[in-house]
Amino acid sequence: VRDLLLARIRETCQREGLLTPGDRVIIGLSGGPDSVTLTHLLPEVARELGADVVALAHLNHQLRPEAGEDEAFCAALATRLDLPFESDRVDVRAEAARTRTSLEDAGRTVRYAFLEAVAVRRGATRIAVAHTLNDQAETVLLRLCRGAGPTGLAGIYPRAGLVIRPLLDVRRAEVEAWLAAERLAFRDDPTNRDLSIPRNRIRHELLPYLARHVGEGVVALLARSAVIAREDADYLEHVATETSHSLVLAREGRTVVEVSALLALPPAIGRRVVRMALQRHAGGRFVGFDHVEAVLALGREPERASAPGAAGAAKMIDLPGQRVKRSMGRLVFEPVAPDTARAGRRRGRPRPSLAGFSGIGTGDA
Amino acid sequence: VRDLLLARIRETCQREGLLTPGDRVIIGLSGGPDSVTLTHLLPEVARELGADVVALAHLNHQLRPEAGEDEAFCAALATRLDLPFESDRVDVRAEAARTRTSLEDAGRTVRYAFLEAVAVRRGATRIAVAHTLNDQAETVLLRLCRGAGPTGLAGIYPRAGLVIRPLLDVRRAEVEAWLAAERLAFRDDPTNRDLSIPRNRIRHELLPYLARHVGEGVVALLARSAVIAREDADYLEHVATETSHSLVLAREGRTVVEVSALLALPPAIGRRVVRMALQRHAGGRFVGFDHVEAVLALGREPERASAPGAAGAAKMIDLPGQRVKRSMGRLVFEPVAPDTARAGRRRGRPRPSLAGFSGIGTGDA
Repeated sequence: VRDLLLARIRETCQREGLLTPGDRVIIGLSGGPDSVTLTHLLPEVARELGADVVALAHLNHQLRPEAGEDEAFCAALATRLDLPFESDRVDVRAEAARTRTSLEDAGRTVRYAFLEAVAVRRGATRIAVAHTLNDQAETVLLRLCRGAGPTGLAGIYPRAGLVIRPLLDVRRAEVEAWLAAERLAFRDDPTNRDLSIPRNRIRHELLPYLARHVGEGVVALLARSAVIAREDADYLEHVATETSHSLVLAREGRTVVEVSALLALPPAIGRRVVRMALQRHAGGRFVGFDHVEAVLALGREPERASAPGAAGAAKMIDLPGQRVKRSMGRLVFEPVAPDTARAGRRRGRPRPSLAGFSGIGTGDA
Repeated sequence: VRDLLLARIRETCQREGLLTPGDRVIIGLSGGPDSVTLTHLLPEVARELGADVVALAHLNHQLRPEAGEDEAFCAALATRLDLPFESDRVDVRAEAARTRTSLEDAGRTVRYAFLEAVAVRRGATRIAVAHTLNDQAETVLLRLCRGAGPTGLAGIYPRAGLVIRPLLDVRRAEVEAWLAAERLAFRDDPTNRDLSIPRNRIRHELLPYLARHVGEGVVALLARSAVIAREDADYLEHVATETSHSLVLAREGRTVVEVSALLALPPAIGRRVVRMALQRHAGGRFVGFDHVEAVLALGREPERASAPGAAGAAKMIDLPGQRVKRSMGRLVFEPVAPDTARAGRRRGRPRPSLAGFSGIGTGDA
C-alpha cells in the first residue's frame, strides 16, 4: 500500500510539475489524517525528484480546547521524523469577527499567510498542503451548487503560486486505510463532523448518497470533471486576457470598452472580458455573474439620443468599487470613493442567502 | 400569474431566437403538467411573435395501463383548444430490448423520431417540448455525477435542430401553481416517482436536499451554470473545429494527426480535436474521456526506434470503431471491421457500473 501511495504521489508531482530538482519544500501540517500522511510520504518522493522537505509548519487556530494538544502532536511528529518544525498561534475567531468572514474563510486566510511567511523564512520554493481527491469532489459540488459555472467546476488546482497539492489523486479512504495499516497516529478534528458547515454536509451526506445511488465512482468522476474544467478555464482565461489587451483601455483612471467590439465577441470571451474589466476597480471585492450580466445588458441596450436634463440617467449602474456608464458607443468604468463603494458592495452581493457558500474551503490542511 | 408566465416564455423565445415570424410549430404533448402548460400558453406567445402552432403531437409509449387514457386526454385537450392532433403508438419496451438501451433512452429516441415525422408531415419549422428550469438543474447534476465535465454541464439546449424549449426559464413549481390556480387538468405519471430511475432520485431527493441545506436558489444557480457552460462549450467546440480543419487529415480512409502539432495545442483544444478525430470512425458509438486520454498518452509516449519483429506492437490501441497507432511522428486512426468494432465497443465503455446514467433523460415531455 505504501508503494502504491508513493507511486500515485510521484505521478501527480511529475505530471503537474509540482517538484523540480533543487526545490525546497515546507509541509503544512494540521495533524489530521491527510496532512500526517503527506508528512510521512512526501519526503521520500521529494528526494527521488531531487527536492528536499525543509520544515513542517503548523498553525494553531485556537478554536478548540484540544488545539494545544494538536500542536504538541505535530511538534512530536517533526522530532520523530527529524524535520525542523515551525508553529504560530492566531485567534481565528477574533480575525473572523474583524474581517466579517466565516471561521473557515478567516482560518484559510491566516493559515496561508502563515505558510507563506514560513516559506520566506526558510527559503522554501514550495508549500505542500494535503488536499485529497475527496476534497476536490467536495469543492466541485460546493461551487456548482453556488452557481459558480464551469470555472468554479475547475475546483482545487494542483499548483497555485508556491502551493502544491501532491495528494490530489489520492482518496481519503486510501489515506485512512494506510494510516490504520501502519498504525500511525493522527489527530481527530471533531469540527469536521459539524453539519452546520456546508462542506461537511457535502462530505458526510451528499457524497455518500451519490456513491450509494449513482455509483462508487462519483468522487473520481467529479475530480475528472475538475481536470477538464481546469483546462477549459485556463484556455478561456488566456484568450480573454489577450482580447482584453486590445479591447479594454485605461484612460485617465477609468476603463473604457468599445460596445460594438465587445458584443461582437463570442459570449464565452465577452463575459470574461467584462469580468476582468470590472475587477480592475473592484479592489478585491466579489465580481459575479449578475454584475457581468448587468454590464452586458447595458451594452446591448439601444443608445438613445440624449435628451437635455435626462442625459445618461438611465445608462449608469453601480457595481463593486465603480460606476459603469454607457456613452458614445462606449462602456466607461469609473472608480468611486470608498463610501459609495461600500454601498455598491452591499447592493452588489447578488445572493446573500448563499453567503455561507462563498467560503469555499480548501479542505482540512 | 398567467401574464408573468407568458412574459417569461416570450423573453426566452426572443433571447434564444426560438420563434421567428412565419415559424410553424408543433407541440410535443405528453399530458403531464409541463407540456399541458406549454400547450395552453405557447399559442399566444407564438402569435405575438408572428409564428403559429399548427398541431399537438402525442406518442403513446404503451408502458403503463393508463397510457390509453393519457392519449384520450391529449386528444380532448386538442379539441378544446381547436388544434389539430396527431398521435401514434409504439412498444417502447420491445424497442428498448431490441436496441439494448434503457426504457428512458428508447422512449426518448422513438419520441423525437415521431415528433420529427409529424413536423415533416405538417411542414413545421419548430418542435416545441416542455423542459423546465428544474429539468435543466436535474440534467446538470446527472451529467456532473457521470463525470461529463464542463461540456456535460451545458445541460439542455434551448434550441437544438428543430427542437425548441420555451419553458426552460420556468420552474416546475410555477407550472404547478398556475395549473392549480386555473384549475386546469393534467395527467399524473406515477413512473416519475419511481426512485430506481436516477433522474427521479435527483428530482425527489437530491435537489430538495440541496434546496434545504444549500439554499432555495440551487435550481436557478445550476441552470445559470448551464448557461455559462453552454457559451464556453460553443466557443471551445468552434475553436477545436477550426483547428481540426488544418490539423486532422483524411488519407486513404484513415485519419492522420501530426503528434507534435497536437501536443503543442492548449490541452482544452487538443482534447477536443482528438475527440472529434475519434468520432469520424466511431459510427455514433460513445467516445469518452478515457478514449481521448489513451490517444493523448500514445502521443506523449517517446517514439522508440522500431526494432525488427516488435515494430509498432506497443504503439497501437483499440478504440470504438477504430485502431489508433503511432508511426513516424503521426497518430493514425484506422477504421476496423464491424466485428472488431463491437469488441472495441465493449472494451471501450469506460464505466459499466454507471451504465444507468448514460441515459441522460431530457425530462417528461
